[in-house]
Amino acid sequence: MRLAFPKKVVIREVGPREGMQIERTPVSTEDKIRLVDLLSECNFPVIEVTSFVSPKWVPQMADAELIAKGFKRNPGTEYQAIYLNSKGIERAQATGKFDLEGVISIIASETFSKKNTNRSIEETFDEMDERIAVLRKFDVPVSTVAVMTAFGCNYEGNVDSEHVVQLISRTFEKANAHGLNPDRILLGDTVGWANPVSIEYLVGEVQNKWPDKTIILHLHDTRGMGLANAYAGLKMGVTHFDSSVGGLGGCPFGGSKGAAGNIATEDLVHMCHELGIETGIDLDKLIEVTLEAERILGRDLPSKVAKGGSLASYRQVPSS
Amino acid sequence: MRLAFPKKVVIREVGPREGMQIERTPVSTEDKIRLVDLLSECNFPVIEVTSFVSPKWVPQMADAELIAKGFKRNPGTEYQAIYLNSKGIERAQATGKFDLEGVISIIASETFSKKNTNRSIEETFDEMDERIAVLRKFDVPVSTVAVMTAFGCNYEGNVDSEHVVQLISRTFEKANAHGLNPDRILLGDTVGWANPVSIEYLVGEVQNKWPDKTIILHLHDTRGMGLANAYAGLKMGVTHFDSSVGGLGGCPFGGSKGAAGNIATEDLVHMCHELGIETGIDLDKLIEVTLEAERILGRDLPSKVAKGGSLASYRQVPSS
Repeated sequence: MRLAFPKKVVIREVGPREGMQIERTPVSTEDKIRLVDLLSECNFPVIEVTSFVSPKWVPQMADAELIAKGFKRNPGTEYQAIYLNSKGIERAQATGKFDLEGVISIIASETFSKKNTNRSIEETFDEMDERIAVLRKFDVPVSTVAVMTAFGCNYEGNVDSEHVVQLISRTFEKANAHGLNPDRILLGDTVGWANPVSIEYLVGEVQNKWPDKTIILHLHDTRGMGLANAYAGLKMGVTHFDSSVGGLGGCPFGGSKGAAGNIATEDLVHMCHELGIETGIDLDKLIEVTLEAERILGRDLPSKVAKGGSLASYRQVPSS
Repeated sequence: MRLAFPKKVVIREVGPREGMQIERTPVSTEDKIRLVDLLSECNFPVIEVTSFVSPKWVPQMADAELIAKGFKRNPGTEYQAIYLNSKGIERAQATGKFDLEGVISIIASETFSKKNTNRSIEETFDEMDERIAVLRKFDVPVSTVAVMTAFGCNYEGNVDSEHVVQLISRTFEKANAHGLNPDRILLGDTVGWANPVSIEYLVGEVQNKWPDKTIILHLHDTRGMGLANAYAGLKMGVTHFDSSVGGLGGCPFGGSKGAAGNIATEDLVHMCHELGIETGIDLDKLIEVTLEAERILGRDLPSKVAKGGSLASYRQVPSS
């Protein structure tokens, strides 16, 4: 168990993709592009821009090509896009704007898997060889093994950490059989079931079994423990986090209307900075982007720092 | 340094007093009474009901007597009220409804002290003997030494923990000189300057110097770290917390319009239960009260669990 903060963390901004996909208010392509460009100015190491999926299933992302064409690449930033199949990869690659990543995903909850991907866990394993073959065919570097609902889900309750570790093992075996060895493990708290102790526990188990892999925590704030969970992760030495500007998005699952989605990026960045952990991200600019995202969506976003102000800003110019 | 969770914590609900005092929407006396009664049904160990202060300064609390008369005492609950002087104590005692507590307060930030109490820190110490004499005269048990802005403030930035420890020492000396020995120390993060590490540090310092005193953490969620801070406190063995239903209230200080106030009680209760820590509070009922508070105020409250649903409720009846 590593019990020291990392010096620096890598925060992936997923708001333009995951957040926008869930938001109910229609957002113009122009605003989506502007949001990505504004986020690029904050100096994110990674931004998830959009999804190349069927507009039949995800109409919010029907303008993926237009967004790809429109946004400006910042040399210091990696731009990612989501895809489900070879058609998606082809579409994303055709734009020439993305640093595509190969993620092999598995959902830890059987019911969630069936409801969200129309496949059981076993069926997902059955199709994994094909998934990997497609990634190889298109030269997408297979970087990550991802487990969604790794802490629990509204359908099945708590997920056992043993089960998660087994799923990761089996996924690595599949990858290894293709001569691949992804160096990252993403643990997704997809519907907000983690607490700081379960984070410590699962992260510890994964670190023990795969000490050389990089862990990515994908946290949601459904029950308000998002930053406490991130803190627990930081204490365990976790260096990679997903979050969305302003906490953009929400929770589309299990009838939780109005529930919170991803942890808010600026709150996470602010906490890291307060703890002396570097992010490389321009927090002042990011807070401006949050306010702009609120204007675009015409609603308050759950961000706290955007309203309370960063402590750094008060230290610079004490208010009077 | 105690690094174990307590088995049980005492959560004081401060929404009806601190929350209501800050809310801008006028709330009827009837609704205020109903809120206290609903909270009583949740089985809180302590509820802060109202303030007996001058309606000239706090018009929201002009109906303190009516509230006192109206609410029903639950035998398992302590009901507290705030007062600033002998007149306030007399008014509160005249109602016969309160378990008044004697708190000796000091504000750690000089500027905050002057702006909010019109007294410097030294002037507060100068008046402390009189304060204590008044408490004794009215037989109010002096239970608590309280330090506000104990972690920092928007006017002066970070507050040094040495300074806080000195303020506590001097306050105890004053109390001791009157033959009193308050058994609680309240550390107030009045404007949201704490982070989990500064919580660990100050709590640790106070525990080392006063190992027999009970620490109360009064946390605000101004920058989203409220529950992470509570978690850090729990890890240090802190057993007493203040919070407000729904995160009712907000932050009236330093131009932080729309900023969050106290941590939301149901989010705190939920986290405790998830960590296996008892609160004695009926979370399902509390969530209903949060929704009722939202209806009373006609606005969304920052509570997360009220929207996302408690994990316990999903475990009982998995959604399908």
